[in-house]
Amino acid sequence: MLVSRCENVEGKAVTDPEAKEVTIRVLMGDNVGAPNFAMRHFSLAPGGSTPYHTHPWEHEVFVLSGNGKVLQKGGAMAVAAGSFVYVPPDEEHSFVNAGDSPFAFLCVIPAAKFCLR
Amino acid sequence: MLVSRCENVEGKAVTDPEAKEVTIRVLMGDNVGAPNFAMRHFSLAPGGSTPYHTHPWEHEVFVLSGNGKVLQKGGAMAVAAGSFVYVPPDEEHSFVNAGDSPFAFLCVIPAAKFCLR
Repeated sequence: MLVSRCENVEGKAVTDPEAKEVTIRVLMGDNVGAPNFAMRHFSLAPGGSTPYHTHPWEHEVFVLSGNGKVLQKGGAMAVAAGSFVYVPPDEEHSFVNAGDSPFAFLCVIPAAKFCLR
Repeated sequence: MLVSRCENVEGKAVTDPEAKEVTIRVLMGDNVGAPNFAMRHFSLAPGGSTPYHTHPWEHEVFVLSGNGKVLQKGGAMAVAAGSFVYVPPDEEHSFVNAGDSPFAFLCVIPAAKFCLR
């Protein structure tokens, strides 16, 4: 068993050129030998956003703090602490900080072996 | 894409006789056709606890609010908002509300098809 805290995990800037002011912390993944899925913590500074993109795996997202928007084909939806978002495989999406404080959320993805099809 | 809020999901009392004062909300699972894993929200009232048990699948847990304890073979560890817990397959564990307010956490498990081995 691993018991730790989010702030004990080193945050890394997401280097994708289309990501703005995004910090990722991989809480549980290869570090614990997680066999099926990985939980990551994202923090977007004010003005920050993740790329508007698609990929062949799903996201399960839970918003922890701040005010954000989820962009999708049909438009944008506001989210805040307690919101959750299911992004199916191959669906366009982006997460945007729409407030003045950090916008933080968890995003769970399948382990790499399930990302290929 | 599904965008919703935790409180919009009906909470159900966990009926396992060894669970005390535990409410579960399945945020993303069969309801969205999640192919690989399910995110559940648990709230334990003061005095509440989950069974001390094992099973052949892992948990990835993130604590949202309240003060809790994680019981394991080696003893107990305190957790609070921002704590995360990886419970490997087949490892004894229990979550206990150690405070006077609800103790809430997310717990992600693999989809049923991966729980068998």
